[in-house]
Amino acid sequence: MISVEEALARILAQITPLAPTHVPLSESFGLVLAEDIFSGDDIPPFANSAMDGFALRSQDSQAQDGKPARLRIIGSIPAGYVVERAIEPGTAMRIMTGAPVPAGADAVIQVELTQGAEANSEWVEVLEKVAPGNNIRPAGEDIQRGQLVLARGAEINAWAIGLLATLGYAQVPVIRRPRVAILGTGDEVIDVGEVLQPGKIRNSNSYLIEAATRQAGGEPHRLGVARDTVESLRENFATALSHDLLITSGGVSVGDFDLVKDIMREQGQVDFWRINMRPGKPVAFGQIGGVPLLGLPGNPVSTAVTFQLFAGPIIRKMLGHTRLVKPQVEVIVEDGVQEQVMRRHYVRAHVTWNGSAFVARTTGSQGSHIMTSLLNANAFVIVPEGGVKIHPGERANAMMLDWPEVEVNI
Amino acid sequence: MISVEEALARILAQITPLAPTHVPLSESFGLVLAEDIFSGDDIPPFANSAMDGFALRSQDSQAQDGKPARLRIIGSIPAGYVVERAIEPGTAMRIMTGAPVPAGADAVIQVELTQGAEANSEWVEVLEKVAPGNNIRPAGEDIQRGQLVLARGAEINAWAIGLLATLGYAQVPVIRRPRVAILGTGDEVIDVGEVLQPGKIRNSNSYLIEAATRQAGGEPHRLGVARDTVESLRENFATALSHDLLITSGGVSVGDFDLVKDIMREQGQVDFWRINMRPGKPVAFGQIGGVPLLGLPGNPVSTAVTFQLFAGPIIRKMLGHTRLVKPQVEVIVEDGVQEQVMRRHYVRAHVTWNGSAFVARTTGSQGSHIMTSLLNANAFVIVPEGGVKIHPGERANAMMLDWPEVEVNI
Repeated sequence: MISVEEALARILAQITPLAPTHVPLSESFGLVLAEDIFSGDDIPPFANSAMDGFALRSQDSQAQDGKPARLRIIGSIPAGYVVERAIEPGTAMRIMTGAPVPAGADAVIQVELTQGAEANSEWVEVLEKVAPGNNIRPAGEDIQRGQLVLARGAEINAWAIGLLATLGYAQVPVIRRPRVAILGTGDEVIDVGEVLQPGKIRNSNSYLIEAATRQAGGEPHRLGVARDTVESLRENFATALSHDLLITSGGVSVGDFDLVKDIMREQGQVDFWRINMRPGKPVAFGQIGGVPLLGLPGNPVSTAVTFQLFAGPIIRKMLGHTRLVKPQVEVIVEDGVQEQVMRRHYVRAHVTWNGSAFVARTTGSQGSHIMTSLLNANAFVIVPEGGVKIHPGERANAMMLDWPEVEVNI
Repeated sequence: MISVEEALARILAQITPLAPTHVPLSESFGLVLAEDIFSGDDIPPFANSAMDGFALRSQDSQAQDGKPARLRIIGSIPAGYVVERAIEPGTAMRIMTGAPVPAGADAVIQVELTQGAEANSEWVEVLEKVAPGNNIRPAGEDIQRGQLVLARGAEINAWAIGLLATLGYAQVPVIRRPRVAILGTGDEVIDVGEVLQPGKIRNSNSYLIEAATRQAGGEPHRLGVARDTVESLRENFATALSHDLLITSGGVSVGDFDLVKDIMREQGQVDFWRINMRPGKPVAFGQIGGVPLLGLPGNPVSTAVTFQLFAGPIIRKMLGHTRLVKPQVEVIVEDGVQEQVMRRHYVRAHVTWNGSAFVARTTGSQGSHIMTSLLNANAFVIVPEGGVKIHPGERANAMMLDWPEVEVNI
């Protein structure tokens, strides 16, 4: 048996980020930048007003003989427009937030600190002295032309999209999403819409993998369920060749009678591993026709756990991410883990912050066919190898499934 | 000025979850269940084998006179098929993982604990005594027919999708996604693909809001940018009426010269609030033609912060969620917050777990037009109202933007 860490290291060594492409800005959310982004402009592009008020010469704002300075209004500058006229001594212009500061002005006083300047008034009284630069945002204060703004490899979140829009990137250079083929296997598996027949179960794994693939950033394509015949398996593997990754479920157990392993070996180079973990001991990894293949076990809980540990990091590495795995924190395991398992045990649990520590409660029966153990689970409590018991209230590490990924630490 | 909490409470009081609908299972990810889900079947639907091995009568597994029990192989049961024949004393059947346990058998022994049973062998030797029920998963062990499996109001994650598939839900009853109209305003705003002209800036807010809306679970529709004319604003507000929510940016400041507020008032009932926060003091909220309207300020950082605080919870409440706001944790503010602000200050920061505590570092200049302060921020450090200074190393609460939402605590 190999360790989870060794399996993950071997898998990731075979995976490389996909090719760069360009996508429209609106579709770039969650993708990884394929190039450094430098600014072609100063941002803001011109000195502009931070307030609605009056542009003036700061030295003109000084009260005289206890009376407020009185300035002649010589124009009005809405946002989006440039005036040719300049501010001269004793004059001011109305100015809106975001409008360019006119020549001659070195300050803006907000409208609340003036009086007498109703709609048609020709004069405004300035109630406070302002310093040079008051309420003016200089050109380039945020970003200077030529500055590196976003580095290659950064994940594009909503805020980065705002920045890319500001810089004029209608198209964004990104690493493309992996196309992931998802294949169920087994004569016992029928589709979701079908009525159960004796001996049959519905295909849950393909739908689970589809959703988890989308969540990880991949573009899922369900190929359906391969029958346990040479023809059906060959045909489905052939279809998978037009994808970037093939994820199968079922048919990879060490003792399996079925054909899946034979066909995987026939079509490519696939190793069958026994991983020192529970659930999910049997996992296959290799390639068929150059397409990476990850074979997950057939039990739904095993599928869910092994997807999280191995498929998620593969998809994220293909997407160009460097943060590939879910983070771990120390938790207090309120109800403990009584069952002693020799393999490393990933126990489904719900973790909450109690104000001073993270507290985990396990989610019931932990059999690999007990799907309800996944309900309400937002973490895996990690019980180390060797038959370790965690008594109620003892501490353990937990993998936090709802938190953003971190770098692999193996 | 009203507090953030009061503003949020007033807003949420006006928002109700949208109507239930049915969507295909594959499209239900992230949505909220509109009905309780009861199981129509036992899961597993029939007693089945947990291993590849041999189905037998447990009492037949006992060694005799120091020799392993020897059983006649009378059949083979692949997964997906039911055999009519029953196990009789002294016999066994090959059985695959997941295959139905035949009548007469009360245990399965895994293939690794047998010998002599090569492909065509008629006999198998049993190397260990097994107990009744060994390696058998009883029908209904995970879920019993009629059991409540997923409650109305639950968010559908990848694992719930696996469960729904198991239960045969090809269509899922969910609360539909809100259609969110997004409208920029202002003559100074040009589209992303355009060349900057004097006095103009590119439309970043609409793209930022679009991405953040999608992230929150809404279905964004960018309406473009309304010009500062009565006609343009009326036309755009009319288009917004076919949506569930209208989010605008710009034009809501107290001192604004522009038309946006007039038209909002003309078309519906909209209040303009000054919220005791920075960035993002001016926010509008109300409705036009019965469609809720949220008016965010025009500065991009203000837009980002107010979206997080107000628009995210609106969209989530429409989606039927009860967990609406980002959680807060206590952090050590490594570099402190020197600037004293009378309003509550949401300081962009990057928070990491240092092994024993969460540590925040702020992300540079915090002006509301400094978009680069959003880069690398995964949290807002919350500096309380009243000009509080946070010295380097002191503690404060931070809102964790990458973590899943929690219930509103106001």
